[in-house]
Amino acid sequence: MEGDPISKLCTPAMVVDVDIVKRNAQRMVDRYQDLGVKLRPHMKTHKTLECGDIMTGGTRRCVVVSTLAEASFYADHGFDDILYAYPLPFDKLERCAALSERLSLFQVLLDHPEALELLSKRPLRAGHPWHVWLKLDCGNGRAGVLHSEPEALQLAQAIAKTEGVELTGVYAHCGNSYHCKGVEKIQAVAQETTTLTLQFMEKLRAVGINCKSSIGSTPSCSHPIKDMGQLSEVHPGNYVFYDVQQSLIGSCSMEDVAVRVLTRVIGHCPHRNQLLVDCGWAALSQDGAGRLPSGYAVIEGHPDLKLLSMTQEHGRVEPITGELDYSKYPLGSLLKLVPYHSCATAMMHSVYHVHSGGRLVGKWFPTRGW
Amino acid sequence: MEGDPISKLCTPAMVVDVDIVKRNAQRMVDRYQDLGVKLRPHMKTHKTLECGDIMTGGTRRCVVVSTLAEASFYADHGFDDILYAYPLPFDKLERCAALSERLSLFQVLLDHPEALELLSKRPLRAGHPWHVWLKLDCGNGRAGVLHSEPEALQLAQAIAKTEGVELTGVYAHCGNSYHCKGVEKIQAVAQETTTLTLQFMEKLRAVGINCKSSIGSTPSCSHPIKDMGQLSEVHPGNYVFYDVQQSLIGSCSMEDVAVRVLTRVIGHCPHRNQLLVDCGWAALSQDGAGRLPSGYAVIEGHPDLKLLSMTQEHGRVEPITGELDYSKYPLGSLLKLVPYHSCATAMMHSVYHVHSGGRLVGKWFPTRGW
Repeated sequence: MEGDPISKLCTPAMVVDVDIVKRNAQRMVDRYQDLGVKLRPHMKTHKTLECGDIMTGGTRRCVVVSTLAEASFYADHGFDDILYAYPLPFDKLERCAALSERLSLFQVLLDHPEALELLSKRPLRAGHPWHVWLKLDCGNGRAGVLHSEPEALQLAQAIAKTEGVELTGVYAHCGNSYHCKGVEKIQAVAQETTTLTLQFMEKLRAVGINCKSSIGSTPSCSHPIKDMGQLSEVHPGNYVFYDVQQSLIGSCSMEDVAVRVLTRVIGHCPHRNQLLVDCGWAALSQDGAGRLPSGYAVIEGHPDLKLLSMTQEHGRVEPITGELDYSKYPLGSLLKLVPYHSCATAMMHSVYHVHSGGRLVGKWFPTRGW
Repeated sequence: MEGDPISKLCTPAMVVDVDIVKRNAQRMVDRYQDLGVKLRPHMKTHKTLECGDIMTGGTRRCVVVSTLAEASFYADHGFDDILYAYPLPFDKLERCAALSERLSLFQVLLDHPEALELLSKRPLRAGHPWHVWLKLDCGNGRAGVLHSEPEALQLAQAIAKTEGVELTGVYAHCGNSYHCKGVEKIQAVAQETTTLTLQFMEKLRAVGINCKSSIGSTPSCSHPIKDMGQLSEVHPGNYVFYDVQQSLIGSCSMEDVAVRVLTRVIGHCPHRNQLLVDCGWAALSQDGAGRLPSGYAVIEGHPDLKLLSMTQEHGRVEPITGELDYSKYPLGSLLKLVPYHSCATAMMHSVYHVHSGGRLVGKWFPTRGW
């Protein structure tokens, strides 16, 4: 119930500190206002309306999503200027067309001539063009046409000249920033992605094409370099929650992490120097593979403890060294897990319990599926 | 739409072969009818009504669940004789009491005197007793009072003599069978758990206590040993779907695995000898940690391919050896992933698409939460 302390929740439960969420969101807004670059926040971490409102300052405009289910969910609730930043899916063309015809500005992304061919064969009604971003791979090694290949420029030109299709922009994801440790290395990746993207924009201008440019990833967008000021947009997402992984990369401090999984002690196992808690992978995810010194999560306020292993609904906790003092952890007592990867943890929950200063203020319900 | 081939589904999508589900369920029924032991199927893998119906032969009686959300869901839909096989949660006592007072037979489980004390302080209304199973640890190393400790017998006696509380049975989970490879080793664990449980039942009889006994795990229950015929019940769950892990343990053959995640090729990356598919960990889970020779899953019909890595919505596929022949995998073509761990994969989906012989016959909607 609203007003109750979070300790009243049945466990496991994911809680979100709305004040930290707002602070993380505002810092990102301020950062890109200063740089003169449009912030297009990614919804994929939380997938909720409320957090979308916070990230867009209530405008419900200019967002990016990772699934068509998210696109439809946000469109159904008055969001517009939505970029579905995923290689154009052959099986969902009609759903993309419907959103394009319904919204003021629904944008798709592609990285292959065959996808462009699909669009050209399915002209939109009522004078709507297909708004298309070209996905460029600037070293991330996932989706996108390689920046260094001549096919990249050829595809951009083909998009630009196809009837019923408009080249809206060039989109690069610097997910390789997730391998960094520390601001210097993050900024090196940000610099490389920015430079390669801007060089590609130069090549486009040389053939008479002007369009937008966008790069993103929470690490790089948390520590922008000067040249990012020459981009049109950035598109980070995880920053609104952050997590242990981001703190290790150097994107944030642990004080910026907005989410916890609450769990209770459900067993004492002195014969193996362990506690059992009621958080398994069903509530935390297996992301991080337990490689932290503290295992699968950081146990807030207990740097001496490790979440050693999990099954579906159980977690095994042991001291990092020495013997467990069970008197400190009576059965039923509450522990707060800071997730390794908040995107993965959030996916395990159909409700997020939102609090301010430890008092419940509401619930957020994410969308799911594809 | 019903009648459509599964290839019409948007991807990623989890599909369930209802004929294999029924065959797996019937085999388990037959196995324990022959042994004269009651089968109490576990709902935690699928968490759906329809699969619960198949596993109980339509009786909606005699099931076991892992969360109170499942217990409530099944109770709300006419299931009864439900065992909530999880260490009695201090925060959910009132919810357990409400289910106990409402159903003919709602059963809880505990492994600590403090939990018993909670029950004794919250007598049920209308002459209902608390139906309590004692959780015994017979070498699994998770929840339960250690079979070898004098506390085990003391706790059983305390339950039996507490007013308003009834000792219904002794419950052991042989999750350690998951470390086995091959029938012989599975049966060694089944034998050990059964022997220790039956020895404990002997100790109980010696002090005048008669109650039920139950052991379970899909590996052990797929290959019962003769002594399991002396138990009252068994409680496997995963067998209704099975998965790659179970086939490696030796619980089943790959032909018995009822679930797939359908995914489509969304990218060709010849510069790194890879395909991209639209299945990331959001649709498959990270269970198995990619340790299979074929990575995070088995790609049906393509033993030469490996699901190397995943991000939230992308999967990277490469050949196990040699160069990829892209002409075999056009953009948009469908691949079928056999999950490493079906419990974990099912958790990622809010709808399961059910088919018979590749034609859609319906959708199942699992319950979620705690």
